[in-house]
Amino acid sequence: MTLRKLSTSEIARPEPAELVGASRHPIVVVVENVRSAYNVGSILRTADALMVRHVYLTGFTPPGDHRGVHKSALGAQDTVPWSHARDSVAILDALRRDGYCVAAAEITDSPSTAQDLDPGHFPLALVLGNEIEGVSESALERCHLALELPQFGAKHSLNVAVAFGVIGYDLVRRWHHLN
Amino acid sequence: MTLRKLSTSEIARPEPAELVGASRHPIVVVVENVRSAYNVGSILRTADALMVRHVYLTGFTPPGDHRGVHKSALGAQDTVPWSHARDSVAILDALRRDGYCVAAAEITDSPSTAQDLDPGHFPLALVLGNEIEGVSESALERCHLALELPQFGAKHSLNVAVAFGVIGYDLVRRWHHLN
Repeated sequence: MTLRKLSTSEIARPEPAELVGASRHPIVVVVENVRSAYNVGSILRTADALMVRHVYLTGFTPPGDHRGVHKSALGAQDTVPWSHARDSVAILDALRRDGYCVAAAEITDSPSTAQDLDPGHFPLALVLGNEIEGVSESALERCHLALELPQFGAKHSLNVAVAFGVIGYDLVRRWHHLN
Repeated sequence: MTLRKLSTSEIARPEPAELVGASRHPIVVVVENVRSAYNVGSILRTADALMVRHVYLTGFTPPGDHRGVHKSALGAQDTVPWSHARDSVAILDALRRDGYCVAAAEITDSPSTAQDLDPGHFPLALVLGNEIEGVSESALERCHLALELPQFGAKHSLNVAVAFGVIGYDLVRRWHHLN
């Protein structure tokens, strides 16, 4: 059997206009001081694929209309709801008041995985931190839990856009499993 | 409860010297004409975390000792076995002769997921294609199956390093589930 690649027109996707008001997964992403526009664009592209509710770009993270972000977002900056704010902590406090479970993508003394989550953990806000420093201490104080991926090699961390891809897919699958 | 981030020295990882001859997951990655050194470095970093056997960088993919690759590989170019070859098809033919199941990360008329795999699908070679064109037709002819991720948004694809992260973790988890 020979596999045949589908052309872009054969791949069923909603039109951008259909996404307005469409049902989205009860997940938001809070990006804290991610320096690389390349990473931010890649995160927006994954956020489009995952149909998350919103991406909060905070601190010195470049905004979604930054030229460098466009290069890797490839249009996802127009299909994913995003906003920019200076203070990640104010965003996290507001999300907690709105009933969100706040989860850091971080290596801590109390690791959880997406498979541990139950319906009470949704809606969920996933916090992604700076490429070098990770999630800030003040943001971590607002987190209910920390999600961690097994790592078998010699290095200590994954690229932040890759980590979001893996954890983001885990969260969406877990939500579908529970619903 | 306050979460506490682990410092680098608290995170248990093998030393690079311990990885020589260490047991690795029966998975190799064939990277075909990936243009961006940033993507290649990120792929090597994920390949370290996943403890795959080997990464074949083929065609015009920059090699692991390329300066730009180092910037995002962050040392993983020294902890993951990799090699560079011009012809991806010769690599795939050799892997098939060695008993590998060859799987494209690609959207095709016959989609599979990692959850469909059984013990007979390992060892497995995952083929990652060019950022624009995807996996080449001649490589696709050598593939036994194509692995695809659900995408809920308006865009048609994920960044190649992100797609490798999600599918790579899926493959390692599936292998552990089966063994």
